[in-house]
Amino acid sequence: MIDRAGLRRLVYEALEDEEWPNPIGRWINRLLVGAILASLAAVVLATVPAIDREWGTSLLVAELVCVALFTIEYGLRVWASVEDRAGRYEHPVWGRLRYIATPMALIDLVAILPTWLALVLPGDLLLLRTLRLLRVLKITRHSPALATFEIVLVNERRSLLAAGTILAVALLLAAGLMHHLEGEAQPEAFGSIPAAMWWAIVTLTTVGYGDVVPITPMGRLVGGITAVIGLGMFALPTAILGAGFAHELQKRSFVATAAMVARVPLFRHLAPAQLAELTTLLRPRVLPARYTVMRRGEHPDAVYFLDEGRVALRHEQRRIVLGPGSFFGEMALLEGRVRLMSATTLTSCRLLELRAGDFHRMLAGDPRLRQTILHEVRRRNESTPASDPGASRRASPVP
Amino acid sequence: MIDRAGLRRLVYEALEDEEWPNPIGRWINRLLVGAILASLAAVVLATVPAIDREWGTSLLVAELVCVALFTIEYGLRVWASVEDRAGRYEHPVWGRLRYIATPMALIDLVAILPTWLALVLPGDLLLLRTLRLLRVLKITRHSPALATFEIVLVNERRSLLAAGTILAVALLLAAGLMHHLEGEAQPEAFGSIPAAMWWAIVTLTTVGYGDVVPITPMGRLVGGITAVIGLGMFALPTAILGAGFAHELQKRSFVATAAMVARVPLFRHLAPAQLAELTTLLRPRVLPARYTVMRRGEHPDAVYFLDEGRVALRHEQRRIVLGPGSFFGEMALLEGRVRLMSATTLTSCRLLELRAGDFHRMLAGDPRLRQTILHEVRRRNESTPASDPGASRRASPVP
Amino acid sequence: MIDRAGLRRLVYEALEDEEWPNPIGRWINRLLVGAILASLAAVVLATVPAIDREWGTSLLVAELVCVALFTIEYGLRVWASVEDRAGRYEHPVWGRLRYIATPMALIDLVAILPTWLALVLPGDLLLLRTLRLLRVLKITRHSPALATFEIVLVNERRSLLAAGTILAVALLLAAGLMHHLEGEAQPEAFGSIPAAMWWAIVTLTTVGYGDVVPITPMGRLVGGITAVIGLGMFALPTAILGAGFAHELQKRSFVATAAMVARVPLFRHLAPAQLAELTTLLRPRVLPARYTVMRRGEHPDAVYFLDEGRVALRHEQRRIVLGPGSFFGEMALLEGRVRLMSATTLTSCRLLELRAGDFHRMLAGDPRLRQTILHEVRRRNESTPASDPGASRRASPVP
Amino acid sequence: MIDRAGLRRLVYEALEDEEWPNPIGRWINRLLVGAILASLAAVVLATVPAIDREWGTSLLVAELVCVALFTIEYGLRVWASVEDRAGRYEHPVWGRLRYIATPMALIDLVAILPTWLALVLPGDLLLLRTLRLLRVLKITRHSPALATFEIVLVNERRSLLAAGTILAVALLLAAGLMHHLEGEAQPEAFGSIPAAMWWAIVTLTTVGYGDVVPITPMGRLVGGITAVIGLGMFALPTAILGAGFAHELQKRSFVATAAMVARVPLFRHLAPAQLAELTTLLRPRVLPARYTVMRRGEHPDAVYFLDEGRVALRHEQRRIVLGPGSFFGEMALLEGRVRLMSATTLTSCRLLELRAGDFHRMLAGDPRLRQTILHEVRRRNESTPASDPGASRRASPVP
Repeated sequence: MIDRAGLRRLVYEALEDEEWPNPIGRWINRLLVGAILASLAAVVLATVPAIDREWGTSLLVAELVCVALFTIEYGLRVWASVEDRAGRYEHPVWGRLRYIATPMALIDLVAILPTWLALVLPGDLLLLRTLRLLRVLKITRHSPALATFEIVLVNERRSLLAAGTILAVALLLAAGLMHHLEGEAQPEAFGSIPAAMWWAIVTLTTVGYGDVVPITPMGRLVGGITAVIGLGMFALPTAILGAGFAHELQKRSFVATAAMVARVPLFRHLAPAQLAELTTLLRPRVLPARYTVMRRGEHPDAVYFLDEGRVALRHEQRRIVLGPGSFFGEMALLEGRVRLMSATTLTSCRLLELRAGDFHRMLAGDPRLRQTILHEVRRRNESTPASDPGASRRASPVP
Repeated sequence: MIDRAGLRRLVYEALEDEEWPNPIGRWINRLLVGAILASLAAVVLATVPAIDREWGTSLLVAELVCVALFTIEYGLRVWASVEDRAGRYEHPVWGRLRYIATPMALIDLVAILPTWLALVLPGDLLLLRTLRLLRVLKITRHSPALATFEIVLVNERRSLLAAGTILAVALLLAAGLMHHLEGEAQPEAFGSIPAAMWWAIVTLTTVGYGDVVPITPMGRLVGGITAVIGLGMFALPTAILGAGFAHELQKRSFVATAAMVARVPLFRHLAPAQLAELTTLLRPRVLPARYTVMRRGEHPDAVYFLDEGRVALRHEQRRIVLGPGSFFGEMALLEGRVRLMSATTLTSCRLLELRAGDFHRMLAGDPRLRQTILHEVRRRNESTPASDPGASRRASPVP
Repeated sequence: MIDRAGLRRLVYEALEDEEWPNPIGRWINRLLVGAILASLAAVVLATVPAIDREWGTSLLVAELVCVALFTIEYGLRVWASVEDRAGRYEHPVWGRLRYIATPMALIDLVAILPTWLALVLPGDLLLLRTLRLLRVLKITRHSPALATFEIVLVNERRSLLAAGTILAVALLLAAGLMHHLEGEAQPEAFGSIPAAMWWAIVTLTTVGYGDVVPITPMGRLVGGITAVIGLGMFALPTAILGAGFAHELQKRSFVATAAMVARVPLFRHLAPAQLAELTTLLRPRVLPARYTVMRRGEHPDAVYFLDEGRVALRHEQRRIVLGPGSFFGEMALLEGRVRLMSATTLTSCRLLELRAGDFHRMLAGDPRLRQTILHEVRRRNESTPASDPGASRRASPVP
Repeated sequence: MIDRAGLRRLVYEALEDEEWPNPIGRWINRLLVGAILASLAAVVLATVPAIDREWGTSLLVAELVCVALFTIEYGLRVWASVEDRAGRYEHPVWGRLRYIATPMALIDLVAILPTWLALVLPGDLLLLRTLRLLRVLKITRHSPALATFEIVLVNERRSLLAAGTILAVALLLAAGLMHHLEGEAQPEAFGSIPAAMWWAIVTLTTVGYGDVVPITPMGRLVGGITAVIGLGMFALPTAILGAGFAHELQKRSFVATAAMVARVPLFRHLAPAQLAELTTLLRPRVLPARYTVMRRGEHPDAVYFLDEGRVALRHEQRRIVLGPGSFFGEMALLEGRVRLMSATTLTSCRLLELRAGDFHRMLAGDPRLRQTILHEVRRRNESTPASDPGASRRASPVP
């Protein structure tokens, strides 16, 4: 029988989903994501009067069920979070209070509190209804995309602050100048600097609603310059966020590529350091069925390693079908001539692509790899009957 | 005489255009692209009442002719697709059914079905008329650009999903907050969250129609912040799609560059590995006629290899015209001084450009190349008469 | 007692904040930034009639206090700027006049002059009120972000001028063509080329107010093409400003990374050249609490060095808590297998990340580093009790 | 006395401005640019009725003078273009006809023809007036920015065509779907597919005038998706044009950097290959006066070479002023410690920056350079009096 501490650990791990292959943790995960989406849909739909009249009660019940689930989840998390923090024994209350103050736990609290308060407090509090939407932030815990975005925001916070400062200065100067130029002609829209700021932000972000528009010639001149500066406003977040996001995603794909490389039979004898270096060179590609990977007569630019799916090589009347673990495209590179074969995917495939230069460098540095490849090439050439267009064999991976 | 299996193969290859140099396949290709564009034009123009009254019958006939062509194409593709799939013999019906279920074959079916159904079914079905536009997707088969875009979408699907999730969260929170703030002031536009979402999407994408605009001070504050967040929304697809598209296009241009490098006489003795490495260093450039490639007195930054067109070198009174296979710009680099010659294109030219640092590294690693270049430089200096500005000779490529 | 020259030097340094660790300079800095923001708020709020009626006098007093402070600052700067310029003795008046003509000093003058002039001159001069907003530029002296932006603008001024020229040509041609096509249909909006330019700039920047819109079919065709060209207008500043800004920020982060690398005990014996090279390889990351840095079963892609915060390693029942100066994630790489441990941040952490390939290269080039790491790994394995899940010890940095 | 052929050559070179240092060519260049701008201003202003009434005749005269100048320029170019093309003798008429057919010559013709035709033909031809604006294209000959843009457009034409195809497919599908959904509700705006295309292009480019807006729920859903796709439409030209433009500009800056590197006394003994490699490592920076290049206590990340302007080094009470040809910042790197000196620009400066890692690599590979630098460092330390804060000397470049 499990003791209380063991149970706490189990609950903690099931909820935190720390060990990915755990199937129960994955199902709990999916259930919670479903509940978040369902309760958000209920809140959104309840704001449409026609739907609320018809289905109001059902939507309320659905939301209450979801919130009850979140409440149980929140309770279990608080209960289980005693000793997992610093790994030291301390009084349970302190551990729990410390957990309750973390950002994720506060989001969990915001996800349930407004609904229970709305039941208790008298009247229909509009603010409480709106606050319920904040539970969309709960999804951060389950979506790697949003977690990545959070990391990028934290990493690049200084650059983003810099871009924000520049935007603020541009905003203030544009609004002040426009207040000066258009204030008399349009006292409603440009009569004060805060009012003119609405126009300035709408123009600098190139949204351009058109509800407030300069009408004097000088106002239009300044308005045009403000709009051009808006072009620059897009440059900074694009450079900052885009680069940060691309870097984080690239790191994740490196891990996936490493797993693919480790599955290629040809690379099994490589040392860890060589594998790690090879991983940075190989580029994974996902291709649809019937995609022509290489074409006869082309200059060769890469060798391909097949990780998933099947590919057909064709050379005049001969045809070879390759399965996972095979490689192709190496002959034209080894012999320094144009390609004699075409290769088309039969199913949707996952390939690893190795550029020509990197391939030659790899062979030069590893004689055993060179031997294995030459051996496989010779074997493939001999074993394929040349006359029958229909006959083909599944080339087995390197023995 | 060709048997049935051979005919099937022929039809398959002509339609799939797998072997590029086949002229019949290319003409069939062009005919089909023309039919796609013509039938789309007919569908589009038939929706304009004035044109429909005048030319309605002609447009209908044109479309029917095109659709008949597509039907024949579809029939031939299905008929010919028996054995080309896995390369194994199986019952023809299975092979064909499997082909019919591929995405490209479904697009082909959608391109013809609505027109035939519209002839058969009674009444004027609006939906069928709209569905006919989907045949624009047939062009994916013929346009490398769209195929590239498809590959990029498949490769980056996870990143795009991540960007989509972030957009969805921003959308929901902006709409919910705005419903709360402006719901009473503008019940028409912000009375429910789904209604407020229209405003949110129009603002986050910076489209800004202006049909729905916040009017309360707090609403304008939130609206301004939403517009600024819209700046960030552009950063993610720009980083993801832009980088993916650039990588795919770059890969294609590598193949084209490799063919150009192989044509340069100077590089004929290089081993395949050297050629592949050189290809990554050389950058192809297309220049208009009368473009000054290098100027007297400049610091040298590159050597140029001429692949197509003619270039005139000028040094005081001397003039040399170079044709395809020649190179120029190497002297200033070899002697470590500013350029003594200007070079201007006479016709539109295709050049390969090699950066100064890469040129020196290449010479250091290949004494034979160094010899050939020095020999050619000496020969060129001796053979050009120095006094007659009009006399020039076509410098032949390295012997 | 300090003499006059020493006092001048002291005042100069306190204001210029050249030596960062000086606490008085930092407080003066903060006071001045606060005064800039406060006086801007006073100017902005005074333009709102309702606020001006109620709080007008208070706002005026607040602004006068701030401006008095700026005046004192300006006076001290002019007084102290005698000998610090070229470092040579010269007549004080010349040094001061030269200082007054620098851009920063002119901004300081513009920040105070309009307010004093408004008090002296009769009537309410609108222009003087607007000019007071220019004191937002004073913040350039205190904000590294704006200073960075200024550097980027100066460095990329030629590229930006090029982009501006292209925009101007597109603007002129679009306006001229539209004046030709829509001039008769909408004489108000397109009756002259300057008037049509308002439409052209609003469309090319994709602001699209909608106050002026083409209505003829030909006008809409040209309008559509202009809008598409607007897509390209975003490409140039994005490439120019974005790349320049990213480069400048990257340079600053290099300095911060170098300081972190120097604090890692493991790297203390490295020569300066090795440290500098290592700094280019290590990537600093800031992570929130409870972030999973690595996961059991993953393929290893990096080693981590902890600069700030605490991280918990978990391997089945064992748990190790690491503090600043420790490293982790090296075992899977050294033994060439998947990770056996998970690592989660306990507090918000600052890490240095070293990619797998770079790690192997570093070890191969430095046997002493290899020894130290292997020693630490062995020590960590031995000293952790395997049975007690709660017991953990703070792994001390390498001795 | 000059003969006719020599005169032709002279005219040709003055106009083509092939040899940059030629002062007459530069003045002709400026005169022609001025005339282009003046004549464009005259054309633009003449379309404003109020200005035309007042100044019409003056504007006409100004334009005629400019056009007369262009006519002379055109005549001279045609006359002088006989033998400069292929460098071979041929009948002058052929050479001239061939010149007239080049794109630049056609632009020159378009710049003058409409004005002369307007004088000759009866009536006020609106088309001729608009065509006169095309003379803005003449500026391509004189603006390197526009020439660069032209090269980029030519180089990337395939990628841009690909992006255009994707835009066209999205446009057609969005317009077709919207015609189907909103056609009945708004027959005016969505009654035909060509009409709906106006909405689609305005939305996909995120211009969003707001003159045509979907009103049905399904229409708004499709409109929202179209707006999101518009985010992607910005990604492709940004990646294509931005990267191409950045590459071309970078190439030009390489040439300028090479000239700066050649002026540094320390590098005079380097071989051309070393110089070329060094040029790729050094990064030119333009800094304003009073900019702090490095700060005491920082970790060193670079060495600086001063090309233009003066920099003051400060170390407690000592002060050194450096002029062009000096270098600084090397000591902290050589001794592997934080910076002991601050460096501030006295005037606006042009510096070359060498990253720490590259500096160490350079020293390791060139013992003579190492000697020179160590010698200069020792000399600088000895020769500066340590007690007098005001005394400083201009450190002369390496002897």
